[in-house]
Amino acid sequence: MSKKFNENYQYKPKQPLSAKELANGVINNNPVILSRAITLIESQKEEDRALIYEALKHIPPSSHKALRIGITGSPGVGKSTFIEAFGKHLGELGKKVAVLAIDPSSNITGGSILGDKTRMEELSNLPNVYIRPTPSKGELGGVAEQSFETILLCEKAGYEIILVETVGVGQSETHVKELVDCFLLLMLAGAGDELQGIKRGIMELADAILITKVEQENEKHAKIAKSNYQNALHLFPPNSNQWVPKVLTCSSLENKGIKEAWRTIEDFERHNAANKWLDENRKKQNLFWFKEKLNQLIKTSFYNKKEVKESIEKLQNEVEKGNIDPFNAALKLFSHR
Amino acid sequence: MSKKFNENYQYKPKQPLSAKELANGVINNNPVILSRAITLIESQKEEDRALIYEALKHIPPSSHKALRIGITGSPGVGKSTFIEAFGKHLGELGKKVAVLAIDPSSNITGGSILGDKTRMEELSNLPNVYIRPTPSKGELGGVAEQSFETILLCEKAGYEIILVETVGVGQSETHVKELVDCFLLLMLAGAGDELQGIKRGIMELADAILITKVEQENEKHAKIAKSNYQNALHLFPPNSNQWVPKVLTCSSLENKGIKEAWRTIEDFERHNAANKWLDENRKKQNLFWFKEKLNQLIKTSFYNKKEVKESIEKLQNEVEKGNIDPFNAALKLFSHR
Repeated sequence: MSKKFNENYQYKPKQPLSAKELANGVINNNPVILSRAITLIESQKEEDRALIYEALKHIPPSSHKALRIGITGSPGVGKSTFIEAFGKHLGELGKKVAVLAIDPSSNITGGSILGDKTRMEELSNLPNVYIRPTPSKGELGGVAEQSFETILLCEKAGYEIILVETVGVGQSETHVKELVDCFLLLMLAGAGDELQGIKRGIMELADAILITKVEQENEKHAKIAKSNYQNALHLFPPNSNQWVPKVLTCSSLENKGIKEAWRTIEDFERHNAANKWLDENRKKQNLFWFKEKLNQLIKTSFYNKKEVKESIEKLQNEVEKGNIDPFNAALKLFSHR
Repeated sequence: MSKKFNENYQYKPKQPLSAKELANGVINNNPVILSRAITLIESQKEEDRALIYEALKHIPPSSHKALRIGITGSPGVGKSTFIEAFGKHLGELGKKVAVLAIDPSSNITGGSILGDKTRMEELSNLPNVYIRPTPSKGELGGVAEQSFETILLCEKAGYEIILVETVGVGQSETHVKELVDCFLLLMLAGAGDELQGIKRGIMELADAILITKVEQENEKHAKIAKSNYQNALHLFPPNSNQWVPKVLTCSSLENKGIKEAWRTIEDFERHNAANKWLDENRKKQNLFWFKEKLNQLIKTSFYNKKEVKESIEKLQNEVEKGNIDPFNAALKLFSHR
């Protein structure tokens, strides 16, 4: 970088770290270095990501595996409050917890920004709890494209439980299933409007449905909803691991049902450790992300070509208007390779 | 091709057709030429596909749109018998119907091969009905990768209704939603074992659930199942087109509920023509297949490289064993580009 005088120059305390320093920082669970590693992962600069991939090579394979839990639900369902209560409970049990929360400031679907920030700060003050707001950009609707790398880094840093928050929208939301071991869907008791925005197909992916905001005054209502969901789940095709999804209720405000949610997840873990599904699924997920990353690399190198960038929009318009069929349009663009 | 004497030489009646001849044959609804066009689409040879894409350029855009109906269900649910009864009904209404049926001989999930063949022959003898068995290979679990091209050709040939049969398994089964306007899921009354194999998430994609094999003796049982499914469907997130999925019953053997199934699909068509969803969805689907085909081309050209073919398996093994993380493995393979 040029060292020319720059009017906008600001104090820049961060010294660049080497791949080895990054690796050691992560292994020794230095939260500052872990955060910098994740920032490198999320960087748009190729050299930043190259550095972190180099660092990963310096982290030896270990037998330690964190339990990865996906937490999904539409805005307003109470994801942040649940994560706070749930994270606190896990913290009190002495668990090392990492939370990959959606950055409320970048969350286009809304949410109580100030409230979220305060709650997250409170949780992050707990010992053994690490919170990382992830930008909700990219294809994965709330999950940054680099979530799998981030999860891996948190696991390498020794966290035992990793909570991954997503919003349940977006084309590739089903990819979230490939990120985590256990998938929790948060719902409100009055099914209907609050489901607007949640992608169809998400419900069938859930390992547990958690009905939120069940305070004393609507317990009766929630009981009916619970029974409805339970009946519906029985009509779904069985999971390959033979786990039967559970329906639970909770009130994060009144701190009810939080322990039960954790106990259900413990059951899930026991069930799927016993039948070896957890290990098998991890292998499959690693292969999935190997191919996914490879395809991302292949596609990026194609779509970044000058000629492709210049003609893709025009061709898309022609396809939309029906002036060219999708295959000849694809062949035409591909000729720029 | 060499004209050397060949002991295995067989009588070969097919003369190669030019792109223009293929295009004209399709436009004039010549079923023999349509079949040859589809065979070219399904060919593994690049030059065959190039010929058919060239032919597509000679077919002018038309305002005629066929209604595309996806029919999915696990083996044994009675897809073939339903398609026969349903196709007959449509034929009797004077509709021009194309059926893209799974070739039973290539269907690894089983099925009554002889029975299927006989049934399909009976249906294919009807005027205005065209049946094309599609090989159930590829990623799409029963849908050949070239199904969209086949659908397009059938539409260009003037068919008004296109029935696309799939088996509801496979990684990319949700792609079927991108192939059709309307998605029908066939189920048996006693939910449970028969759902084994159907991919989770499929149920939420259905525009109608059709409970099959409802003969007189199990009508009562089916009524309960119908009400259960109806209740479950209300718990799903709403469709973007505001269509509320219907639950129907039928007996293909006793020819009951077939008319009602067609009437429901007509309702679906009316509803979604009125709100412009059908047109909008077609545009989206064309863009989807433009990108999908482009990505297929990009990926194929990469994965067919000699160096890639040589090292991919070894790298996959290392990823599975945990000796290398998925990202460094991807970067390593990508360096062969």
